Amino acid sequence: MARQETPQDALGRLIEALRVLPGVGPKSAQRMAFYLLQHDRNGAALLAQSLGEAVETVGHCACCNTFSETPICITCSDDRRDPSLLCIVETPADQVMVEQTLSFKGNYFVLMGRISPLDGMGPNEIHFDRLLNRIEAPTAGIAVREVVLATNFTSEGEATAHYIGEVLKSKGIKVTRIARGIPVGGELEYVDAGTLARALMDRRSVS
Amino acid sequence: MARQETPQDALGRLIEALRVLPGVGPKSAQRMAFYLLQHDRNGAALLAQSLGEAVETVGHCACCNTFSETPICITCSDDRRDPSLLCIVETPADQVMVEQTLSFKGNYFVLMGRISPLDGMGPNEIHFDRLLNRIEAPTAGIAVREVVLATNFTSEGEATAHYIGEVLKSKGIKVTRIARGIPVGGELEYVDAGTLARALMDRRSVS
Repeated sequence: MARQETPQDALGRLIEALRVLPGVGPKSAQRMAFYLLQHDRNGAALLAQSLGEAVETVGHCACCNTFSETPICITCSDDRRDPSLLCIVETPADQVMVEQTLSFKGNYFVLMGRISPLDGMGPNEIHFDRLLNRIEAPTAGIAVREVVLATNFTSEGEATAHYIGEVLKSKGIKVTRIARGIPVGGELEYVDAGTLARALMDRRSVS
Repeated sequence: MARQETPQDALGRLIEALRVLPGVGPKSAQRMAFYLLQHDRNGAALLAQSLGEAVETVGHCACCNTFSETPICITCSDDRRDPSLLCIVETPADQVMVEQTLSFKGNYFVLMGRISPLDGMGPNEIHFDRLLNRIEAPTAGIAVREVVLATNFTSEGEATAHYIGEVLKSKGIKVTRIARGIPVGGELEYVDAGTLARALMDRRSVS
């Protein structure tokens, strides 16, 4: 097949194109291309169609900024949710995780990133103005009563939470942060000292 | 976003479609979909196009059976190669590996599989009749002088090599098998006993 001599045949282009996927290098891309052509051409055709369709139709919800095909996403249009609670997450994947807990019934705002000056990510890049608009424009006449910061506990996530928290508190909005502590099923012996220290500081009275 | 409630939006369909890729489960598929939509829509569009194009145009070489856009692949049409040598490999990926050694200048036949009765793979599935035709119909008037079996050293690869070798030998064709032994850079202490035993059996006189 002499890959080196003909990088511009359809197979070579497919292998190159597969490398846009995160975590896929040249070997994996080749394996994927060969697998699809040999075992699943229908699946590959469907993937091509789904990719094209998603690139065309998926935009961002005008309300919570997550991916959505409609101007307002399904979560934001769901009137059984509590519009007085607003959970702020970094990514749609984080939102999916919070949803899967079945323990949050408010609305979301998805930053689509985090504050990270080294990567050129500032308040503009996390759509902070849209977040402020979202909080200041009441949904169905109900004002946001509490903002729950559910960014990651990485340094960037913490910086993002700190920034948003400071600005919102200065506007008199109640801001909370999801709890840090020992994970469910976690053993003290194997947890890192920072987490254990935090769990001690944030200890709660036993009811 | 409530993935569970709406599996049939464009994003849900993309996540499902990405799972045709080998080794990609639900979490990876979601990560890939979010990554592409957030960071590389052009790459995603190009991937869609390349997939569609490859599914349409890539077939099999009439001569060596590898993937090819043209009826005869580039390797088989290259008249600088030696048509009297024929290397048999299981997959196009294996062919790429042999090519990369730059130490084989004959032609190939790609089985697109291996004999594996448990998986329903017999001589028909590895296109054994086409292989025989290929060997019996001389390329450019030059008969195949030697068939090099370069299937894997797994039990299926060995069974495949054994089967092909027996049939070809009964037809009076010279058949060789690539060497087993200690890998380059390998240390005897860490090599398995089977490989070391084989390396001892196949020892060569030092010139």
